[in-house]
Amino acid sequence: MSLFIKNGEIVTATERYIADIYCEGETISAIGRNLPAPTGAEIIDATGKYIFPGFIDPHTHIYLPFMGTYSKDTYTTGTQAALVGGTTTIFDMCCPSRAMSAKEGFDTWNTQSDGKACCDYSYHMGVTKFDDASANQLRAIVAAGVSSFKIFLAYKGAFGIDDTELYRTLKLAKELGVIVTAHCENETLIAERQKELLAAGKTDPAQHHESRPPLVEAEGVHHLMTFAELTGTSVYIVHLSCEEALKNAVDARLRGVDVSVETLIQYLLIDKTYAEKTDLEGAKFVMSPPLRDARNQPVLWNALRTGLIQTVATDHAPFDFKDQKPMGAADFTKIPNGIPALEDRINLLYTYGVKTGRLDLNTFVNVASTQAAKLFGLFPRKGCIQIGADADLVIYDPAYRGKISAATQTMNVDYSGFEGWPIEGRPSVVTVRGEVAVRGGKFTGTIGRGQFLKRAPNHF
Amino acid sequence: MSLFIKNGEIVTATERYIADIYCEGETISAIGRNLPAPTGAEIIDATGKYIFPGFIDPHTHIYLPFMGTYSKDTYTTGTQAALVGGTTTIFDMCCPSRAMSAKEGFDTWNTQSDGKACCDYSYHMGVTKFDDASANQLRAIVAAGVSSFKIFLAYKGAFGIDDTELYRTLKLAKELGVIVTAHCENETLIAERQKELLAAGKTDPAQHHESRPPLVEAEGVHHLMTFAELTGTSVYIVHLSCEEALKNAVDARLRGVDVSVETLIQYLLIDKTYAEKTDLEGAKFVMSPPLRDARNQPVLWNALRTGLIQTVATDHAPFDFKDQKPMGAADFTKIPNGIPALEDRINLLYTYGVKTGRLDLNTFVNVASTQAAKLFGLFPRKGCIQIGADADLVIYDPAYRGKISAATQTMNVDYSGFEGWPIEGRPSVVTVRGEVAVRGGKFTGTIGRGQFLKRAPNHF
Amino acid sequence: MSLFIKNGEIVTATERYIADIYCEGETISAIGRNLPAPTGAEIIDATGKYIFPGFIDPHTHIYLPFMGTYSKDTYTTGTQAALVGGTTTIFDMCCPSRAMSAKEGFDTWNTQSDGKACCDYSYHMGVTKFDDASANQLRAIVAAGVSSFKIFLAYKGAFGIDDTELYRTLKLAKELGVIVTAHCENETLIAERQKELLAAGKTDPAQHHESRPPLVEAEGVHHLMTFAELTGTSVYIVHLSCEEALKNAVDARLRGVDVSVETLIQYLLIDKTYAEKTDLEGAKFVMSPPLRDARNQPVLWNALRTGLIQTVATDHAPFDFKDQKPMGAADFTKIPNGIPALEDRINLLYTYGVKTGRLDLNTFVNVASTQAAKLFGLFPRKGCIQIGADADLVIYDPAYRGKISAATQTMNVDYSGFEGWPIEGRPSVVTVRGEVAVRGGKFTGTIGRGQFLKRAPNHF
Amino acid sequence: MSLFIKNGEIVTATERYIADIYCEGETISAIGRNLPAPTGAEIIDATGKYIFPGFIDPHTHIYLPFMGTYSKDTYTTGTQAALVGGTTTIFDMCCPSRAMSAKEGFDTWNTQSDGKACCDYSYHMGVTKFDDASANQLRAIVAAGVSSFKIFLAYKGAFGIDDTELYRTLKLAKELGVIVTAHCENETLIAERQKELLAAGKTDPAQHHESRPPLVEAEGVHHLMTFAELTGTSVYIVHLSCEEALKNAVDARLRGVDVSVETLIQYLLIDKTYAEKTDLEGAKFVMSPPLRDARNQPVLWNALRTGLIQTVATDHAPFDFKDQKPMGAADFTKIPNGIPALEDRINLLYTYGVKTGRLDLNTFVNVASTQAAKLFGLFPRKGCIQIGADADLVIYDPAYRGKISAATQTMNVDYSGFEGWPIEGRPSVVTVRGEVAVRGGKFTGTIGRGQFLKRAPNHF
Repeated sequence: MSLFIKNGEIVTATERYIADIYCEGETISAIGRNLPAPTGAEIIDATGKYIFPGFIDPHTHIYLPFMGTYSKDTYTTGTQAALVGGTTTIFDMCCPSRAMSAKEGFDTWNTQSDGKACCDYSYHMGVTKFDDASANQLRAIVAAGVSSFKIFLAYKGAFGIDDTELYRTLKLAKELGVIVTAHCENETLIAERQKELLAAGKTDPAQHHESRPPLVEAEGVHHLMTFAELTGTSVYIVHLSCEEALKNAVDARLRGVDVSVETLIQYLLIDKTYAEKTDLEGAKFVMSPPLRDARNQPVLWNALRTGLIQTVATDHAPFDFKDQKPMGAADFTKIPNGIPALEDRINLLYTYGVKTGRLDLNTFVNVASTQAAKLFGLFPRKGCIQIGADADLVIYDPAYRGKISAATQTMNVDYSGFEGWPIEGRPSVVTVRGEVAVRGGKFTGTIGRGQFLKRAPNHF
Repeated sequence: MSLFIKNGEIVTATERYIADIYCEGETISAIGRNLPAPTGAEIIDATGKYIFPGFIDPHTHIYLPFMGTYSKDTYTTGTQAALVGGTTTIFDMCCPSRAMSAKEGFDTWNTQSDGKACCDYSYHMGVTKFDDASANQLRAIVAAGVSSFKIFLAYKGAFGIDDTELYRTLKLAKELGVIVTAHCENETLIAERQKELLAAGKTDPAQHHESRPPLVEAEGVHHLMTFAELTGTSVYIVHLSCEEALKNAVDARLRGVDVSVETLIQYLLIDKTYAEKTDLEGAKFVMSPPLRDARNQPVLWNALRTGLIQTVATDHAPFDFKDQKPMGAADFTKIPNGIPALEDRINLLYTYGVKTGRLDLNTFVNVASTQAAKLFGLFPRKGCIQIGADADLVIYDPAYRGKISAATQTMNVDYSGFEGWPIEGRPSVVTVRGEVAVRGGKFTGTIGRGQFLKRAPNHF
Repeated sequence: MSLFIKNGEIVTATERYIADIYCEGETISAIGRNLPAPTGAEIIDATGKYIFPGFIDPHTHIYLPFMGTYSKDTYTTGTQAALVGGTTTIFDMCCPSRAMSAKEGFDTWNTQSDGKACCDYSYHMGVTKFDDASANQLRAIVAAGVSSFKIFLAYKGAFGIDDTELYRTLKLAKELGVIVTAHCENETLIAERQKELLAAGKTDPAQHHESRPPLVEAEGVHHLMTFAELTGTSVYIVHLSCEEALKNAVDARLRGVDVSVETLIQYLLIDKTYAEKTDLEGAKFVMSPPLRDARNQPVLWNALRTGLIQTVATDHAPFDFKDQKPMGAADFTKIPNGIPALEDRINLLYTYGVKTGRLDLNTFVNVASTQAAKLFGLFPRKGCIQIGADADLVIYDPAYRGKISAATQTMNVDYSGFEGWPIEGRPSVVTVRGEVAVRGGKFTGTIGRGQFLKRAPNHF
Repeated sequence: MSLFIKNGEIVTATERYIADIYCEGETISAIGRNLPAPTGAEIIDATGKYIFPGFIDPHTHIYLPFMGTYSKDTYTTGTQAALVGGTTTIFDMCCPSRAMSAKEGFDTWNTQSDGKACCDYSYHMGVTKFDDASANQLRAIVAAGVSSFKIFLAYKGAFGIDDTELYRTLKLAKELGVIVTAHCENETLIAERQKELLAAGKTDPAQHHESRPPLVEAEGVHHLMTFAELTGTSVYIVHLSCEEALKNAVDARLRGVDVSVETLIQYLLIDKTYAEKTDLEGAKFVMSPPLRDARNQPVLWNALRTGLIQTVATDHAPFDFKDQKPMGAADFTKIPNGIPALEDRINLLYTYGVKTGRLDLNTFVNVASTQAAKLFGLFPRKGCIQIGADADLVIYDPAYRGKISAATQTMNVDYSGFEGWPIEGRPSVVTVRGEVAVRGGKFTGTIGRGQFLKRAPNHF
């Protein structure tokens, strides 16, 4: 199996040039101008197209038992959708409930993913409780190749941990050289406000954002920053949505806290007015943290451009509009949380980020691929185009014009939060370790070829 | 002329891998593993060495009439020293006095550099006064390929501009898509404090930092931030030295100001106690902004690591200890300002940044090369290792052990601010556009081969 | 001359109680419950009324040659209006143009006020240039009883001083123990923006606030804070109008800068939409800093309540709508600046501050009287109700209901910025050093009885 | 019973003048100059002395079962010490353990105080758990005259409440118009750090401050600020000790949070080096938050002077050095917390605040008396000198010179944290509601005359 990609414009987090790429087996073996076409290689003409390193979504929920139901994708459907959208590696949140042990959680997720994924994947290991038994199991899981944790300051009783568990999780992470990703919202404030709103008869989807205003997230971030500063642990704030929270993270970085920040494509492009749509339409746009006031969007774009935010993810969690979102028809707190976007992240970020001039091409690659690879220990295997790297390549057609629609999407969910949005570019060909997995917008690869990526701790 | 560099470990701002590089003429034409050795090419074995893109010093004063004397280097000696230290491109400050026109300044600097430089170079065009005539000349100078300005909020009467000139310079820059680099210290505070100190009989070199405390710099930064925010101009703070100033820059970036920040290798490594040495020894360590309290150093390293600071420069301005620094023996305000470092920047940053774990290798390349190339419109010609880029390469020997000493340095100045400091690595071979210019720590290239780099505006 | 005021509810900055007050000559000689009525004293029954210490307006322009015309009030009309509104002491800005010497300015203002004022008054001595001659004259003026300076960072060429003058003025003030009041707006930004707006054909009154956005004021405040911190001088920011500026002042106070802050009744109650009225109506609402976006009002009220802002003034500068404001009909920069309010400040602050619950009664007295007395060296002669204090008393009727109208006002100006606004309370009787000067809303006192108040420096 | 105090210099939070005061029964009935001496009144000549309103200590622990022992004072000894030191009203913390109900706590404290106090007193009602039963009891306690709550974010298991309890306590307080005083330290961080230190064999008193660094307190303050902002409740931070915590409070005030701040005389004057004394001497200086680095002291003094901090208290909690502090000889976490100061607060604040020029006399009265009266609903009964106010007066002799010593103190504890400190002034006579309780430094009053002060809610 070898591929010879001719004449594309290679764009990485820092570079941009026209060259040929030769992939032998699973990795890139040569990059050059006017390389001789290798015998037996499939030849792909990339003239007029960009070649990006495979994109990485650092935050998905492919398998997610949540709020009494399950997110709709499987490792097979989800990773196919990822690939169609140019994402060749995902980090799924392995989130055992507090009733399960860490090991049971890890085993469960492995059962879901083994042999079913179409692109490569890893987990952030959810630490949803912490005690001595957990600590031992977590050490074993890190040794097994999962070098990042996920904690929740929200969802008490389900995934959330208390302060003692938080402190000890961070200390263990520090000891092991593991980065801790964190959902930062103050649980209690949400719970109390939810009760108050429901008691006042406010039950519609728009109450979701009323129940968790920006201060709730800013408080969560501040709390994590204090714990991270006192333990010295590297931390990563997932799905940061607003200026108040960002300010707390930047202040901490200036003080020396090793904190990285992720935002979501959803926060960059849609705002809370979507969740205020009537006839339960708003339920499509319920996720946590909630969509925010539009004033936050220029702040997030600017922070992304200038390196105050490191990554753009999706927090992909697909629940059907027809029969899952309505679970919360009479009570917004029961709406399954999530706005599916795994398939659309790259096309949206390219169309509404690069084409509008908010991001240059290198920054686009950096925030959508390279930074995640670096932070989470996949670099330089992933996130770059260099000799020896995995041949995960996205041959991207900037001339493509289309629209997002649930009718045509690969994700296994019955609606799109971006229905009808024009896109100006899409992956033409996507490869996974040297094998073509997408052509012309369709998955053409091999189910089960996706590998679990063993990662070594890299935050000492 | 062709070069074939075998088996080095290529390290760019994002990548790191082992490969061969083939340079034909002035550029890189192929990168691959086990490339066939081209006929007629000089072959360099880089096994066990790093190959970095040529480093860029974004802030030097090679030709500098200042305080009644001249900095000691010429374009020939200065660029040789740069090359020996791994720097293959410099940005010299073209600083006409207020008595000269912009055009005269530009012509003067060209006279100094034409045919004399050993590495490539550009200028930041000093806007040391602003009126209609200046504006026209500046437009012509930008058209001639200088796409960055330099302004001084300090040095009133010499280089400094007033607020009206500042505003108009920023507006012109915005119109032309040019970035404005700025020396941010409040002139008046310095002048008044100098007078007070001298009047109180405080004349020794240590008074220099008393005369310009951190607030003086923080005020300058805040002032520039306001003007940049209201004009929308991209700005770049040169030689930022302290936490207070950095805080103002970061706050502005969070508000959306397009501001980048440079610090100096001197601020990262030496502190104000050096300037407090007796017997005029302190005069060696007088520069502006002054060396600061050591508490600022971890803040600067952290900011560099996390992207709050973009570049590391030298503000290279060599004045002899024997007969120039003593001009200020009886009056610290007359000490010619500057601590030479052009030759040592990279070795110091590698030794005290990378080897100590403060920076990883990619970040090292980014802050010492790639960021400057990007901000100032040289990318991807410089600052990267990719097909088509200039073959400015630094084959760096991490096994080298040595010490910095004035006795052995290439810079044309009679002392070193880092005398006796151990270094753990140095450039083994340095190339300029495909020609070897340094071997074994000695300049072996061609005087006059350095080119003026035409740059197009890139900040629209 | 003696007065016996029975049964009023005395309210000072800290106290509130019912008692009788006996004034002999010019001062208060006894306070007690059920005091025996002194023989020969005029007896005033204050049952059901508040007795406040005479209010102090720390910022007026009674005599003001400005922008080619004069503000309309004289010391006689202005102080009568003040008294009718409950203000018994004013601080007028003595603002010589840069063409005049300080002494000439002081003499000129004395000529305007001598024998004409109906209430007591002092000046803030405008330092509109600074050189050796000025310094000597300023020393003499301080010795003559003016212990506060006024400087302008705006109005370059007219009143504005440069940074060197600023520094030296602050140093002199520090030496003399004098507080420096300051108009904080960056002059250059205003001038340049004015030119741009006019050049773009934007000439109407609403452009006034476009020409001096919040950042312009925040920059001025930050600048003053730096200079105050480095000189150690006590400073007072006049007419602070917005959150951005306040933030800079509060940050400085936290660092130890001795800074006090004044806001205006105008900023608390009306916003920039007033200046956007058409048919030149907006010109009535042109002052500097400009009226701001309404979002700033709760911030200012809160800061006032919690002590982050110290005083409420008027910056009273009356220009007729009929024939003065129209000077700027074709060019907003030519509109004489000012919104008259000297007569209305207390009634507005009581009605819209106290009655709405934004301020308690003690805080109302504190910010409208006591704080000014303390900051500017009049305490305990003014600003309190205690034995020995001047008998400047405001017997205030909280049962009064009326409306503000140009038709009925005492101020010598042909419009009111608060036309038709209901007020819920007004002074029933006002005394000046023991003499009744207002009864039932009308001036009944003696023209010329107002004294120049000699003040000793109190900021060492 | 009547008192006639002649010729003293009356100093309140805003006023300062010489006059006679006549107290009939328990209150002040006349203030005047040269009042006729009433028949039968005791006449006190206060010539050359200050007359202050009785001082208020808003934070004491007279009865305190804590850490397995009891603080040494009783309501009788403690209030005698208070009076000798010029404090005529105390707010004791009524702190039931979590095992007790609120009602049991209130009853217990009443049992301790009934008939035993020598000065007036109230409680802050500790909310050490919150559930429906508590809420009902708290309503009853508020109705019984306790209009302030006390909560602990620290001391989990003992007094500390969780976030849900915190939210609900604040909501109840908001509903009832009650202010919530709060101990702001993050409990978990302390507990974990204590364990780490002990595990590392670090057991001496100096480890106490290592276990609760400034970030721990800043985190607590930030947390409370968020909850207060979202509930709209008035809050009061007790014993704030450091700049980091203050910054969070001031930021919140600027955003509109109704927050007041208390510091302690201990933090203003002694630093953590005291707790680093050897031979268990350091145990005398163990309290929480701990004594801080001396850099915080000028910040606290400045904040006090400029109104960023409202009150100065003692957190008086006396434990004997001989047999109580040694409980923690082998384990710093077992040292009973507290540095006794109830008797010394006023003399120290006068000597080291007023006499050094850090505070003026009015501000001294304001922060040590008036502000507490206002915040906690005792004004104008207490905290001022006006007709009708309680005749709680401190006739203060500024000519007195002495030293603090355990040997001579009234407090029932065997050491002083200020042993040997000179004081320059002390109360000469102290009255409680018209009765002389202290003469010449000795208690001469009536045991049991102190009353429980019923207070109405005042924070709506």
